[in-house]
Amino acid sequence: MTDMKDDQSQNAETGARHLTVEDVRDMALGAAFLGSGGGGAPDTTLLQIEAALAAGRRVKLIDLADVPDDALVAPCAWMGAPTVSEEKLPNGQEAARGLARLEEIKGQKVFAIFPMEIGGSNGLSPLVIAAERDIPVIDCDGMGRAFPEAQMVVFNVYGCSANPVIVTDEKGNCVILEVAWNAEEERIARVLSIAMGGSCHVIDYAGSGYQMKQHAVRGTVSLAIAIGRAIRAARRAGRDPFAALIDALRQSSYYRHAGILFDGKIVDLDRNTEGGFAVGRVTLEGFGASGRMTVEFQNENLVARRDGEIVGLVPDILTFLDSETAEPVTTERLRYGQRLKLVGVGVPPLLRSAEALAVFGPQAFGIAHQYRPIEEINGWK
Amino acid sequence: MTDMKDDQSQNAETGARHLTVEDVRDMALGAAFLGSGGGGAPDTTLLQIEAALAAGRRVKLIDLADVPDDALVAPCAWMGAPTVSEEKLPNGQEAARGLARLEEIKGQKVFAIFPMEIGGSNGLSPLVIAAERDIPVIDCDGMGRAFPEAQMVVFNVYGCSANPVIVTDEKGNCVILEVAWNAEEERIARVLSIAMGGSCHVIDYAGSGYQMKQHAVRGTVSLAIAIGRAIRAARRAGRDPFAALIDALRQSSYYRHAGILFDGKIVDLDRNTEGGFAVGRVTLEGFGASGRMTVEFQNENLVARRDGEIVGLVPDILTFLDSETAEPVTTERLRYGQRLKLVGVGVPPLLRSAEALAVFGPQAFGIAHQYRPIEEINGWK
Repeated sequence: MTDMKDDQSQNAETGARHLTVEDVRDMALGAAFLGSGGGGAPDTTLLQIEAALAAGRRVKLIDLADVPDDALVAPCAWMGAPTVSEEKLPNGQEAARGLARLEEIKGQKVFAIFPMEIGGSNGLSPLVIAAERDIPVIDCDGMGRAFPEAQMVVFNVYGCSANPVIVTDEKGNCVILEVAWNAEEERIARVLSIAMGGSCHVIDYAGSGYQMKQHAVRGTVSLAIAIGRAIRAARRAGRDPFAALIDALRQSSYYRHAGILFDGKIVDLDRNTEGGFAVGRVTLEGFGASGRMTVEFQNENLVARRDGEIVGLVPDILTFLDSETAEPVTTERLRYGQRLKLVGVGVPPLLRSAEALAVFGPQAFGIAHQYRPIEEINGWK
Repeated sequence: MTDMKDDQSQNAETGARHLTVEDVRDMALGAAFLGSGGGGAPDTTLLQIEAALAAGRRVKLIDLADVPDDALVAPCAWMGAPTVSEEKLPNGQEAARGLARLEEIKGQKVFAIFPMEIGGSNGLSPLVIAAERDIPVIDCDGMGRAFPEAQMVVFNVYGCSANPVIVTDEKGNCVILEVAWNAEEERIARVLSIAMGGSCHVIDYAGSGYQMKQHAVRGTVSLAIAIGRAIRAARRAGRDPFAALIDALRQSSYYRHAGILFDGKIVDLDRNTEGGFAVGRVTLEGFGASGRMTVEFQNENLVARRDGEIVGLVPDILTFLDSETAEPVTTERLRYGQRLKLVGVGVPPLLRSAEALAVFGPQAFGIAHQYRPIEEINGWK
């Protein structure tokens, strides 16, 4: 989906390659951008991966097409309020314990893993376990961005079972859920995440390579790398990183509708950790006469209103970035006085079907407005 | 422990016998008494068992001594606020689903089950599954009364592991906990019970016959039957049911210190469903010049004060009964204006050791007073 031909570690036959430290830093930036404000800030996860690479471990990225149909593959993610994850660090064994338990239950080794959401820390965290276990990361994810709730994944939209759901924490607790229907996972695992101190590791919707080929959002890991690379290259060259970002998105197959929605300064921020989420609303005032922008969030940014008019709606991506450096600012890192640009991106058609909108469209968040594609609202060509 | 020689269905060699409808009704009454106000009112569970017996199913009660050392046996209980269980009925498959899952995990059939607590509905509920699955109920329990929290069981006091903890609900959800240490079960399973609507079925501390022989509180099912039988016989004969109750307790090996602590009318009741428990305080005024009695409870009655002076403290049993009929009144059934007697009973030495008091003595409930045996406080011989 993105051009990887210039990477020397690429294996031309299979599309597989080993990620460099630069790749991972690019990915941290790009995943934080694609997360629509969610997924948690990637800093500590990036440190873990850098340490693993420095110790000689390797992270292999493979195409979904290269996964055998009968292989067992598992999406990984952390669940919880990113405000909590800023203070409560993992013990490093949560994902490994969960994968080991999955293998016992399925009686099959895990062939490869991938991020359940391509967002912030959650986009990166599978790389930690991939380095440790020496298993590949697949170039795909389960959301095409980040979403706050467990059922908001394409595998649920398109009829896969979440079971078994394997929840682990830093104390060594392991909980296996066999839910009666997928939406029960969110209700049950959310209270577990709270009981476990506000965050926990979750493996769910594990399945065969065949199943993932049917449903996963493809190419999002390499897209994250390409986004981060474009922004960092522009910074180094003294070019506009926002122009580079939007250019990188336009080169992708499915995220090409992108634009800057606002440029301003935070004048009001109301954020609480409630029900296991970071929820709230942020208001910016524009520079010059450009009005006010208000964005509501539940871990992720959900709806953006400029002077009261909607300019972007979930599931389209809405991400704040530092006005100068284009460093993404996740919702738990928003602070009064920050100077930010809000960038909007249209998500792939897979995430805009009627079934998909029923699961993670505006109504799923109690927003009264019907979804309209961001490029249509803003007249982007 | 109690005299069962007059029961015609008893098998003289093994101590095993099939319970009659009368046995089960007696047990419902006796278990509600031994529950110290907890375990939930037994009415709906009793109806389930009566229906099963009427349909020709049987419930076999066996002595713990008759369980093979290597047999797999499982304590069963409902967790939650009894106030909720008054309105939310089971679907009838919760325990069966949990036992089936336990058998899969252990790779062994369950030989027999028993109540985790000999209290109210929870004392009786294993009989439902015993009738359905045609497996015996063992004459023992894990608390010697009822307690509100998962770790408050003799198996935890004496070093057994709670794992695997199998939680099921009426929707068909099944959750398997592998806790890092036993006290984590209470924290995690309690929020599950809340997420599952306020109550759920729990199988924990399942183990071998050998293990249960080391630790279980023996003879409490037959004691419950004997208590119920004594009270109901006294009612029929027009004798004082309280004298019969206390007489039945004095004939038991371990519950012989018993007495009436108060006789009065409820003049104040403060009860809330909080954190998954029914918690509160009830105050009675005595008839004549006998003062006031205040009892604090968390599902179970915990501490009784007559005119401000403590007259009974957890883990000793404190149960309210209707002043006329000696029908036990569980905490969720307390109502303003009820005329009640409060009966206190000393628990067996097994529940009064330093290790036991550390787990379910007054301090475990935030009560500042040191435990003193009820017979000592009240000068009972």
